[in-house]
Amino acid sequence: MLKGLMQDRPLLISSLIEHAARLHPRREIVSRTSEGPIHRCTYADIDRRTRQLASALTALGVTPGQRVATLAWNGYRHMELYYGVSGMGAVLHTINPRLFPEQIEYIVNHAEDCLLFFDLGFVGLVESLAGKIPGVRACVVMTDRAHMPECSLPGLLCYEDLIGGRSDAYDWPVLDENVASSLCYTSGTTGNPKGVLYSHRSSVLHSWAACAVDGLAIGAAETVLLVVPMFHVNAWGMPYAGAMSGARLVLPGPALDGASIYGLMRDEQVTLALGVPTVWLMLLQHVDTARLKPRDELCLRRVVIGGSSAPRTMSERFATDFSAFVVHAWGMTEMSPLGTVCNLLPRHAGLTLEERLAIQEKQGRAVYGVEMKLVDDAGVRLPCDGETAGHLLVRGPWVTRGYYRDAGAGLLDPDGFFDTGDVATIDADGYMRITDRSKDVIKSGGEWISSIALENAAVAHPAVAEAAVIGAAHDKWQERPLLIVVRKPGGELTRELMLEFLQGRVASWWIPDDVVFVDQLPHTATGKLHKLKLREMFKDYRLPAA
Amino acid sequence: MLKGLMQDRPLLISSLIEHAARLHPRREIVSRTSEGPIHRCTYADIDRRTRQLASALTALGVTPGQRVATLAWNGYRHMELYYGVSGMGAVLHTINPRLFPEQIEYIVNHAEDCLLFFDLGFVGLVESLAGKIPGVRACVVMTDRAHMPECSLPGLLCYEDLIGGRSDAYDWPVLDENVASSLCYTSGTTGNPKGVLYSHRSSVLHSWAACAVDGLAIGAAETVLLVVPMFHVNAWGMPYAGAMSGARLVLPGPALDGASIYGLMRDEQVTLALGVPTVWLMLLQHVDTARLKPRDELCLRRVVIGGSSAPRTMSERFATDFSAFVVHAWGMTEMSPLGTVCNLLPRHAGLTLEERLAIQEKQGRAVYGVEMKLVDDAGVRLPCDGETAGHLLVRGPWVTRGYYRDAGAGLLDPDGFFDTGDVATIDADGYMRITDRSKDVIKSGGEWISSIALENAAVAHPAVAEAAVIGAAHDKWQERPLLIVVRKPGGELTRELMLEFLQGRVASWWIPDDVVFVDQLPHTATGKLHKLKLREMFKDYRLPAA
Repeated sequence: MLKGLMQDRPLLISSLIEHAARLHPRREIVSRTSEGPIHRCTYADIDRRTRQLASALTALGVTPGQRVATLAWNGYRHMELYYGVSGMGAVLHTINPRLFPEQIEYIVNHAEDCLLFFDLGFVGLVESLAGKIPGVRACVVMTDRAHMPECSLPGLLCYEDLIGGRSDAYDWPVLDENVASSLCYTSGTTGNPKGVLYSHRSSVLHSWAACAVDGLAIGAAETVLLVVPMFHVNAWGMPYAGAMSGARLVLPGPALDGASIYGLMRDEQVTLALGVPTVWLMLLQHVDTARLKPRDELCLRRVVIGGSSAPRTMSERFATDFSAFVVHAWGMTEMSPLGTVCNLLPRHAGLTLEERLAIQEKQGRAVYGVEMKLVDDAGVRLPCDGETAGHLLVRGPWVTRGYYRDAGAGLLDPDGFFDTGDVATIDADGYMRITDRSKDVIKSGGEWISSIALENAAVAHPAVAEAAVIGAAHDKWQERPLLIVVRKPGGELTRELMLEFLQGRVASWWIPDDVVFVDQLPHTATGKLHKLKLREMFKDYRLPAA
Repeated sequence: MLKGLMQDRPLLISSLIEHAARLHPRREIVSRTSEGPIHRCTYADIDRRTRQLASALTALGVTPGQRVATLAWNGYRHMELYYGVSGMGAVLHTINPRLFPEQIEYIVNHAEDCLLFFDLGFVGLVESLAGKIPGVRACVVMTDRAHMPECSLPGLLCYEDLIGGRSDAYDWPVLDENVASSLCYTSGTTGNPKGVLYSHRSSVLHSWAACAVDGLAIGAAETVLLVVPMFHVNAWGMPYAGAMSGARLVLPGPALDGASIYGLMRDEQVTLALGVPTVWLMLLQHVDTARLKPRDELCLRRVVIGGSSAPRTMSERFATDFSAFVVHAWGMTEMSPLGTVCNLLPRHAGLTLEERLAIQEKQGRAVYGVEMKLVDDAGVRLPCDGETAGHLLVRGPWVTRGYYRDAGAGLLDPDGFFDTGDVATIDADGYMRITDRSKDVIKSGGEWISSIALENAAVAHPAVAEAAVIGAAHDKWQERPLLIVVRKPGGELTRELMLEFLQGRVASWWIPDDVVFVDQLPHTATGKLHKLKLREMFKDYRLPAA
């Protein structure tokens, strides 16, 4: 077949930092350091030091394809590792330091990491891993000589010493764009963590999607605060999109409390911030407690919220108190992560805040590059009518087709779609709304009941601290909802009052068959409801009428 | 080497229109038709009819890789051909109907086009080609039955009849992304036209660059008027970027006069318009003649000007009379075409209009995906200091590596860069400014003199209608500038007055060694100065002091 005659230039991560150094040499990267002070450097600095780092890695014997791990917060040295490790053809493996030490040990050994770079704050964590991660040839503390810790780790290296004397005359290799660039493990609620292996191609394409006007609109005029950690799916690709666009980046280090984040937003004139709802809750609490006037003090225009659903009240508070628009986004580690972005359409101009908030509650519309479909249990396509809920499947050049060192094949459906594990609706304009996790949806007589919708309805009761809904076996309906509630301290609530409260708030056939009160609910390491454990706890439970 | 585990999804042109049909089904494509009235349809309509077209092409025996030619203005049927032909794996060959018939004949035969689609206005042109393009199996008039022309062409097909009865249940083939998608011939001033063969990959990557905030920022909120013809380098990629973003497109058909363009801008509430300086001159003249108030009547925010340099006065008029920002852009047919875009940087906020216009005169900064370098005659890199002029070379996945059916290899330099034929400077921020064409630059004693800069200085004289500068042989300096001037009717001007006028306006050693007055200058078919012919005309000329 006739091929085009365009240049066969591979899409490489090194080309992003080269571009930034040529086109945005003076644009700043601002970091709050583990050592304490604010650090400022430019894309030209990062480019130069990244080449020194690549020289140093080569001298340490790192070869293309080998995995180099990090346990680190957001900062310029971490960003240098993003470019230095991947740029030379090795694989950057960012590890979530909040995982249980046993999980980190498993992950390091499964990935066969050969080097481990870590922040000052994780000396104790790494000491606890000593002797358990035999593949790691050397550990490097991401600091300078003056701040090197006293510790028991043998042969510990110092980052600044390592790169300090190196030449910056390093030429990036011209790699195949499908070569692996980075690795990130998902922390599922079941089984061992699984590694998602990104490529140079997927990372560059994903950056373009992030820089598109109707993507995350990352541009040279933005000052972008990455509250989302660089160990979470490459900080949603922002270190790459930043270099592609020349956006000014603000990296908050370990200080994610409300006061620190607010201070950075104010002092660095942040225009766009990205993070999960939890950190925004802390920020909003700080604003309340300290009686701040973000509208007057900040120039924040947009807040990208992902990781879990952005509550309506959060979007409203950012609109009213900050004059900032919440961009609800959705994705997963397996998707690099960008899948959907909840931007408004031209015809939404003129909506009231209430009407706008109703749209912003949705997870948004697929960016170009991600195809979505809804299917039933048999894999048959369902309509995109905004009503019909189905399994959400995705396809695209930055969606995974397998897990690292995973023997299991057949992850994708016959058309090449990946099952997100979410249940969702999609409307005629393409707005997607997650209604449940597939494994949590309650299948009652062939119809699906959203456990999340029921939980949200239940926590609206003033005496409810937390609520979970699971499916309990039922002779006639296969499954019926069981509501498990933690009362607020001093909260008065009975089964009957709870069920009465739900009347009119959910469809009548969704009303749970029973309510059980417990002192606490089980959670995962990342703070999500541990429904698997909950189902185990209630495996012998029988519904009253079943 | 370790490969990533991302999905192996090819980047295909068909995926753009599929995306638009899913995400922007109701967004409009507005066309002024050759038949007369304004036509409105949606991306969903284009998607459906494009599938019908692909079915029809298959029935006509078109197979993947074959070339399908068009002679057509901007309209929805032309857009359907963009997607239908390329989507099925064939190659869309858009031909400039303004070329001389002999050139069109050469191009059709060189490309070995098998079908020719054309607008009503080109019946006569196609009739004149009859018998000279034996490879063309069938000609299709892009109209409906009611408007079919009476003409001598045997077996003429009607577009609407062709696709009318076809099924729209056509599934796009999953092609290799490097398969050829479209073909566009350059009309150089020397030799035969040369074909640039784009691929699906290059077209999709180029679209991302166009949709990036710091590219052309094509987004769903824009209403984009494509004054640039769809036979000019794929209308600068806008039919693709439009579908990628869901921008509303306005296609002006054959009516490019000032009144028609102004009317479309006003009636369709155009926010962004793209075109060459010539059409904007016509628009500005119309605004003057008709004493219009574009500021009050239009909502035009940006005008992208490319094809040739945007004069400072044009940027100023759009700023003052339209409140519209001129985005100066540069590229070539060989570059798909996007190379640089002259957007402002954050630190330019607060500039006066004069200061801003000085920046807007430059061709702009390379978009991510295009690498540029300046070299001297020996191919040695020159500094990007904003002063040193050198040959401008480019590299990237949407830059050509050869011409269609061209035996000559070695088009690229050893590092894979393509020589644009332009001479330029690049400053520390990456702003590029074209100073001359390589073949027109005057090499005086090892230093370069810009013929364009001299011509611009000369036409500033009120008695000069047009001016050209060529290098004339010189014993001591190898070459010295010769200025050739066309006086305005009634203009009084002597050699001495002309040279005196240039004093202080250009470097003293740039002052031409002689001035010659002529009645007219030779031009190419596309209206550019024909310097090659000019040099032939003056090949026996001797400078006074040489």
